[in-house]
Parts: sequence; C-alpha cells; structure tokens
Amino acid sequence: MIDRTRGVTAAAGFTAAGVAAGLKTDGRLDLALVVNDGPRHDAAGVFTSNRMTAAPVIWSRQAVENGQLAVVVLNSGGANACTGPRGLADAEQMAQWTAQAVGVPARDVAVASTGLIGKWLPMPTIEAGIVAASQVLSPTGGTAAAEAIMTTDTRSKQAAWTAPAGWTVGGMAKGAGMLAPGLATMLVVLTTDAVLDSVDLSPALWSATSVSFDRADSDGCMSTNDTVLLLASGASGQVPDRAEFAHALTAVCCDLARQLIADAEGADHEIAITVKGAASEEDAVEVARSIARSNLFKCAIAGNDPNWGRALAAVGTTQAAFDPDQVDLAFNGIVLYQAGAPAADRQEVDLHPRQVDVTVDLHSGLHQATVWTNDLTHAYVSENADYSS
Amino acid sequence: MIDRTRGVTAAAGFTAAGVAAGLKTDGRLDLALVVNDGPRHDAAGVFTSNRMTAAPVIWSRQAVENGQLAVVVLNSGGANACTGPRGLADAEQMAQWTAQAVGVPARDVAVASTGLIGKWLPMPTIEAGIVAASQVLSPTGGTAAAEAIMTTDTRSKQAAWTAPAGWTVGGMAKGAGMLAPGLATMLVVLTTDAVLDSVDLSPALWSATSVSFDRADSDGCMSTNDTVLLLASGASGQVPDRAEFAHALTAVCCDLARQLIADAEGADHEIAITVKGAASEEDAVEVARSIARSNLFKCAIAGNDPNWGRALAAVGTTQAAFDPDQVDLAFNGIVLYQAGAPAADRQEVDLHPRQVDVTVDLHSGLHQATVWTNDLTHAYVSENADYSS
Repeated sequence: MIDRTRGVTAAAGFTAAGVAAGLKTDGRLDLALVVNDGPRHDAAGVFTSNRMTAAPVIWSRQAVENGQLAVVVLNSGGANACTGPRGLADAEQMAQWTAQAVGVPARDVAVASTGLIGKWLPMPTIEAGIVAASQVLSPTGGTAAAEAIMTTDTRSKQAAWTAPAGWTVGGMAKGAGMLAPGLATMLVVLTTDAVLDSVDLSPALWSATSVSFDRADSDGCMSTNDTVLLLASGASGQVPDRAEFAHALTAVCCDLARQLIADAEGADHEIAITVKGAASEEDAVEVARSIARSNLFKCAIAGNDPNWGRALAAVGTTQAAFDPDQVDLAFNGIVLYQAGAPAADRQEVDLHPRQVDVTVDLHSGLHQATVWTNDLTHAYVSENADYSS
Repeated sequence: MIDRTRGVTAAAGFTAAGVAAGLKTDGRLDLALVVNDGPRHDAAGVFTSNRMTAAPVIWSRQAVENGQLAVVVLNSGGANACTGPRGLADAEQMAQWTAQAVGVPARDVAVASTGLIGKWLPMPTIEAGIVAASQVLSPTGGTAAAEAIMTTDTRSKQAAWTAPAGWTVGGMAKGAGMLAPGLATMLVVLTTDAVLDSVDLSPALWSATSVSFDRADSDGCMSTNDTVLLLASGASGQVPDRAEFAHALTAVCCDLARQLIADAEGADHEIAITVKGAASEEDAVEVARSIARSNLFKCAIAGNDPNWGRALAAVGTTQAAFDPDQVDLAFNGIVLYQAGAPAADRQEVDLHPRQVDVTVDLHSGLHQATVWTNDLTHAYVSENADYSS
C-alpha cells in the first residue's frame, strides 16, 4: 500500500533536512540534504539524456559510478545548467561543502539542482544553506526535503511502501512542467533500507523508471537536469526477493510519476493514453506518446472537446505497425472510431471529469503501454510565458 | 518580385471561383474550383505523409499519378478524414460532379478538403456548390478561391511571380494551425503558364516544398489532409530555364509559407530559427526543428522572455553532430551563450517586435537551414480548446 505521507526518511537508516537558504526570494525552503547513515551505502542513478547536460548531472553521474553514495544535496532556485567550467566547479564545491558538513568523502556526495538555466549559483548562499541543513538532519526530515526541491510545483510529492517482510522503499520527487521521457525536469530521490548492492539496484531502477517517469510526458520537453537516485542503507537487515523489490520500487515510482502529472503546470485534466494490440511495446509507447505530444489534442481536452480526429492524426504520424482501416479509438470507454470509420457520436463523451482515458487498439499484436499526460491550458501558457523557470 | 495580390489565376490559362455553398454556417465562401484551360495539363503533387490519410488525399494522389490534372476542387468546412469507405466514395463523387460541371474526365480532377476530422461531408451541399462555382469561373477568380479555402485563417494567402521572359508562377494557400513538416494542415494550389511536363514539375515541386512548407512548423502537428498541387497550362508558350523556374517556384512557396506562419493560430511572434555550422543540412533542420517544437521556448517568447536556456535544452535532445561546449546561441543578434557558458545578459534582448531571430552555431560544419515557427500564446489555446477544427 502506497503511503504518501512519508518519503525519503520512511526507510530506516536515513535522515534528511530542508531549509530556506535564500535561493528563492520568497523565503520558501530551497535546499535539501538526504543522508544515508548506513550501515551500507549502495546506490544507483538514472540521468537525463539531454546532451546539454547540467553541471550537477555531470558531477553526480561520475559520483555514483562506483555504486556508492552517502549523501544527496539538492537545491531549487537555480539549475546550474549551461554554466560552463565555472558551473562545474560550483557543483563540485557543493559536494565538498556537503562532505565537510556531514563527514563523508566528497566522491560519495551527489548534487542535484533545479531552476532557471544559464545563471551561476550564488555560492555563499549555497554554502550557508548546506551548513544549516546539516545541523537539522532528522529521521523525520523527508517532508521538509520534499518541500525544498519544489519549483513551480504546487505541492510536494512523496510516496513510500513497506513490504510485509519489513523493508521499505520511499521517495520524493519534484517537477511540474517539462515532464518528458528520457526523464522529465524532475529530481527524484528514492531510498530503501533493504540489503541490495548496486548490481541489483541499477537494473531495478532502470526498469522502474522506464515504465513510470519515462512515460509521464507533460509537454514533450526534456530537461538538462533530470536526476533519479536510489540509495540503499541495508538498515532493515532484510535481503528482499528481487522481484518483490522491483515491484515495490516500480509502484513507488509510478505513484510519484502520477503525482507529477497531476501537478503539471496548469493542467485541468490528467490523461492516460493506453495503446493495446501493438506489435511491440515500443510501438505502443510510440503511438501513445504521439498523442500525448499533440498540442491540438491537448488543447481540445482542455476545452472538454472530444476531438478524436486530432488523436488519430497524431497516430498517423508514427511508424508503428498498424493498418489505418483496422484501428479503434475510445475516449472514456466510448468507441468513437472503429475499423476505419466514425462510430459513436462524440457528444456521448463527457470530458468534465479530471481523469481522461484514451484507448487505441492497433489490432496488430499483443503488446500494450500507457503514457500519462495532461491537457494544454491557458494556465500552462501563463506559467511558462510570464515567469522565467 | 513577389506580388501578393494575385494567386492561382495570375498565370495565363487558368480560371477559378470561390462560392458559399453552405458548408460553413456563417455564409462565408467555402468551395473553390481551379481550372486549367490549357493548352497543356501537366501537373505534380506533394501530399501529407500522415498514415491516417484523408479520403481526398487518397483520391488526388492517384489522380495526379499520370502527371495530368485539369481541375482542383477544394472545400473548407469538413476534412473528409477518418471517414472510411463512405468518405472515399464521397471524394470520388466530388471529382465526378466537378468533371461533369467543367467537362473533363474525373480522373483529371484533384480533390482537397479541410475542416473537422471524422465527419461525413453534406454531399447535396457539395454538389450544389460545385455547380454554382463552375458557373462563375473567371480569370480573376483566384482571390475568391483563396478565400473559400480558409478555415481559422484570418486572411487569405496568395503570391505570384512573373519572370522577365514572360511566364508566371502563382499560388494560394490556407492553413493557420497544425503547420508541421511532412507538410502542414495546409492546402496549396500552384499554377504556372510555363511549358513544363510533370517530369520537370515533380522534382521542382519537391525541392520547393522541402525548403518552404516543410520548414514552417507552427505546432508540430501533421495533418491528415495536407496537399500541394502544381498545375502547368503552357499558355505562355515559354519553356523556362529549369533553374530559373525552380527559383521562382521556391520563392512563391517560401512567401506563402511565411504568410501561413504569420497567420498561425493566435501567434504574437514570428520566429525564424537559423542553425549554421552544421555537419549536414539534415542536422541543421533537426536542431532548428527541436527549438521550434519546444512548448517551453515558445511560451517564453510569447511572454517576451529571452529564456535561451529552453532553446539550448531543446538542442540537447537532438542527435546532430556538435560539442555542447562549442555551441553559440543568439537572440536577435545578441549572443547569449558562447563556447559553453553564458555571454550577454538576457535583458539586452528586446522581444517586443513581432519578428524574432534565433541563431545557433554548432561549429561542426558548413551547412545551415532555417525553420519558421511562432510563439505559443493564450490565443492558440483558446482557438484550439474552444472550437472544434
């Protein structure tokens, strides 16, 4: 059972903190620490595939390479992306200050930043924030940490799951726009007290992110800073069944992904696009994503208009295996297009509820996939036109 | 010199008409004919690559296959797309009625439709419109035809160019949203009185569309109905130099494409994205298109915010050859990012003028390309959320 009241400190062996360092001008929390107190420090990470890689991603990718992490330091209020050699030095400096404050080697510190691209971080503010956060680390600090990484998010996101055997997986996420595959503008820290080394953690993390965060596609834009880290303390003493652990980790990631979509910038509808009857899972994802990225479709949903032709026009742009005359499409269970021709009247579909289900059957195989997105609203334009982020 | 007051009847040997058949409920013109009176009837066509191909596209693609067309019949008020076998029969019926009214074989009639997807056309209304249009065909009818194909366009689009030797290329276009490569939701009819057969017309048309309509990318959505037709009457008696003809045709297509972008749904800015220093033209187009399709970038421009990080984040998602630390980026000539680090202050850029120039230098080769797009505004959302189209 997913518990949204607990996050990175749900698992034993972790402390966390979130403080207002002053990076955000309005006094909100903006700097977080997540500390693995052990006994083990196994870790894995998944990062953006954006080639304009932010400095903290460059640092953290290398830090987690040996499968060990002790601390994650995260800040909102600045992405430290497209900031050149000085930005990279700043990310390393953040790791060093954190290492000193917590008492671990700098190579075991991951760094994650989010905010405006192309500005250098105010380093004295960062340093003071790290020191302050290190002084209030607490086994109940997960909630403050989750708040400190918010940018345009309207609420913090946490999820935790405790297995019958006694081990726990928990996590926090931020990200409200720019959600896209290859990971979103999104920072996620996951923790567990299960006993697992990085050889087990890495594939479990890849698998879980590929069906959760990778399939949450808010606006098709991929960030320079996306980071998902998984830290394992071993504090429960339990060695989990691998399948059960994979299931728990995926459940937590999917729940966090749904929370991200639900809080995506200015959205009025959460849309689940399920493609079935596909020749492969890749085909199903390609078709679902084509609809999820159609601005015309997303505007129609914002207007409560079941304009199914726009969804089909998106399907037609893909290379997936299907016969255009053998495709079915339904909105909220009402079949609007069947075997190449219009079916039910579009007026039968009620799009006023917040949840929208779009189902496409390609009649070409046995595979299926679901991609989550949201509608394109005036509030999205306002948020992204009127504020730099 | 491009003349925007003349269109499909600028070239000798053509008549056209636009009438209010009643497909649009507000009495505006909605059905057009363009007739090639010869002496020659050479033709070429380029169509959407959307696999959910509209019925009129299926018909017209086959009609132009032999390189001959005598008439184009076009309607707004209904796309006749995703309409199954009945829709295909309707498209053929439109060709037959037109053939009867004008006195040509049905196989020499191309059909083009635009409007809402997934509705069958009101055929009695179409028939009456075709008869009415055939009775008012005129050598000055190009302007009415250009008006009759408008949907959410706020103005009709025409362009013509007369060579010193005396032959002319003219055309009309419609399309206001859904502009995307692989052709936009766009109907274009081009005419010329030069003496050229389809063996010459086809490559010239492909070449012209590939650097004009294919590079106008308003919202990344590809329509089911995109059609570009080129008809040659030979009425000038002039056999043009092929390079000169290609130049003229490209100039007319580029001008029409610019008119489409300028009238794109709800746009406040027209944005020209030029990528230079690319290893190939394909790389340049891929990088330019990635920026043109970033909703975050397009919202920033709508808000007059020179948020160059969003443009770079889009560049980072491509597979083009470049070193992230050797990329330069400028807005309106102000270099904001140079050699991997921030350059000029973003406040130096004034985005209040309607024209925006984004330049990216990849420092990886000698190729370049320009893609035109527009910003993402509240008006775009309103137009696409509040009206079915």
